[in-house]
Amino acid sequence: MSTQVNQAVQSKQVELVSRPEGMPTSDNFRLNQVSIAPIEEGEILVRNEWMSVDPYMRGRMKEGDSYVPPFRIDEPLEGGCVGRVVESKNDRFAEGDLVLGNQGWREYWKSDGEGVQKIDPELGSPQAFLGVLGMTGMTAWVGLKRIANLRSGDTVFVSAASGAVGSIVAQIAKANQCTVIGSAGKESKIEWLRDKAGIESVINYKKTKNLSDELARLAPNGIDVYFDNVGGDHLEAALEQMNDFGRIAACGMISTYNATEAPSAPRNLFRVIAKRIRMQGFIVRDHMDDYEEFISDVSSLIRSDQIVWEETVTEGLENAPKAFIGLFEGDNLGKSLVRIS
Amino acid sequence: MSTQVNQAVQSKQVELVSRPEGMPTSDNFRLNQVSIAPIEEGEILVRNEWMSVDPYMRGRMKEGDSYVPPFRIDEPLEGGCVGRVVESKNDRFAEGDLVLGNQGWREYWKSDGEGVQKIDPELGSPQAFLGVLGMTGMTAWVGLKRIANLRSGDTVFVSAASGAVGSIVAQIAKANQCTVIGSAGKESKIEWLRDKAGIESVINYKKTKNLSDELARLAPNGIDVYFDNVGGDHLEAALEQMNDFGRIAACGMISTYNATEAPSAPRNLFRVIAKRIRMQGFIVRDHMDDYEEFISDVSSLIRSDQIVWEETVTEGLENAPKAFIGLFEGDNLGKSLVRIS
Repeated sequence: MSTQVNQAVQSKQVELVSRPEGMPTSDNFRLNQVSIAPIEEGEILVRNEWMSVDPYMRGRMKEGDSYVPPFRIDEPLEGGCVGRVVESKNDRFAEGDLVLGNQGWREYWKSDGEGVQKIDPELGSPQAFLGVLGMTGMTAWVGLKRIANLRSGDTVFVSAASGAVGSIVAQIAKANQCTVIGSAGKESKIEWLRDKAGIESVINYKKTKNLSDELARLAPNGIDVYFDNVGGDHLEAALEQMNDFGRIAACGMISTYNATEAPSAPRNLFRVIAKRIRMQGFIVRDHMDDYEEFISDVSSLIRSDQIVWEETVTEGLENAPKAFIGLFEGDNLGKSLVRIS
Repeated sequence: MSTQVNQAVQSKQVELVSRPEGMPTSDNFRLNQVSIAPIEEGEILVRNEWMSVDPYMRGRMKEGDSYVPPFRIDEPLEGGCVGRVVESKNDRFAEGDLVLGNQGWREYWKSDGEGVQKIDPELGSPQAFLGVLGMTGMTAWVGLKRIANLRSGDTVFVSAASGAVGSIVAQIAKANQCTVIGSAGKESKIEWLRDKAGIESVINYKKTKNLSDELARLAPNGIDVYFDNVGGDHLEAALEQMNDFGRIAACGMISTYNATEAPSAPRNLFRVIAKRIRMQGFIVRDHMDDYEEFISDVSSLIRSDQIVWEETVTEGLENAPKAFIGLFEGDNLGKSLVRIS
């Protein structure tokens, strides 16, 4: 039973005021304060502590252009968040519970509990459930295990390899006795991959004249699996260097998200025929039945120090747009998070 | 036992004299006459009656750019052929047997019998084994059954729908209770599809302003399977109109084969992610274990008049280059063949 006075709560939230054209700017967002009515029987009130910013959110800022409904103008954005139950009229939740939800970009939210998941603090830090133990880590796992059918001994290429998903992909592949080649665009990221994640073969794509040639040099026997986070020139280089019957897990194409002109590459898509390549797009939430297996697999890799990760933390809800925009500027190492309180 | 005099045979053959840049021309080919030494124990001598010209041969004219070794300069080209055994020192074959081989583009060839298949004239005409009952028909069948996992009720789009492969694809899909939409570039082809093959929904892509819009009009519920023979703008339109979890059987991309500049389309490959599309390249000869099932399936459809086909026949070996070049000029309806003798 709640001991709080059952009254409206003032809550700050970040709203979308206009749809970005090209690269999003702070003008596309607004910080607003709203009043949240008291919860009713069966509901909980949650105060957010962490929220996730992810590249896929760019798709939801477009009109009807992604697999989930677009964000609405003058409404708060949404996304993965971890918060604490501050009031509960729902038997499944108690005050003080840490929960995972999808109402990021705001201080407080209420819910009837549907789609809200209690977090076991024994398994990891609260924010890990937005990263390695959450949809981010599961995206890496599903792409390798369910889409690319990763096999021990495969040569795996992953783009954006120091990013939230890419860094987990690289390490899961390595733990499965695969040869791993990554790409990243900053020396600090390459150092992290080498020194912390144990990935030796990393291409600095901003310093490489010919991505395909560099890939050929690092993978003289060809690529069996390409985990694509980038699209465009990375996909083209991967197609060029893939082996017969190679598999491409199409997870993201960040190179195209802010494009104002239609992207032209890859210019060598015909390679899929002669090489019998399978390219398959996926979205993690189609695979939620595998959640327990994912947690078991990845927790075990974490315990044996085969997966490490980084967090790039932005302080304060008001800075969430900046954190989001930074995803496209190559600012983040590992998982980008906003600490809300 | 052979009753022929065991002497050398004079044989005309078409050789590749230079690798085409862009569209092939007659200058890339030469008709030559060579002497074939008498066969030895275990061998057969075959006189070709029919040969196949196929778009995939364009790939073999490039230097190391396809899944089979490139054709060699100053050597005869190769490809599917049907001929009659005129002399045999091999127990598996008798004089007069009709056989299927891969030594087209010439009058005579000899072989130890490996990879040579006797033809059962009861099943169909000799040249049908280069078309509907041969690799052409099996390409259609494998693409639908083994790659696209065709299901009854699917909406199927096939490009180059009046071509050798496309026309069989359209009819196999229709026989499997699918809604079929085809594309072709000539009114005579569209008439054939409608009047002979029973495919009502055909786009004349040369007269259509917006292929994607036209596809949307003909497939208001979206496309489940795209059988791609063309690539480029057709693939782009298909990606635009595909349903979630759609499958693309990547069989050919004829729009790119003679390109001297890199193709710009598809510009919307990112659709594979949100729509969870699986795009898979294939080559029929990976699937030869399924040959009996294919023959059984397709023979049955032929007997029940659910598959009809056309042949575009060019007379004379010396005209084989012209027949081949015609493949890229939209000349052919159905299977392109050259009658050699």
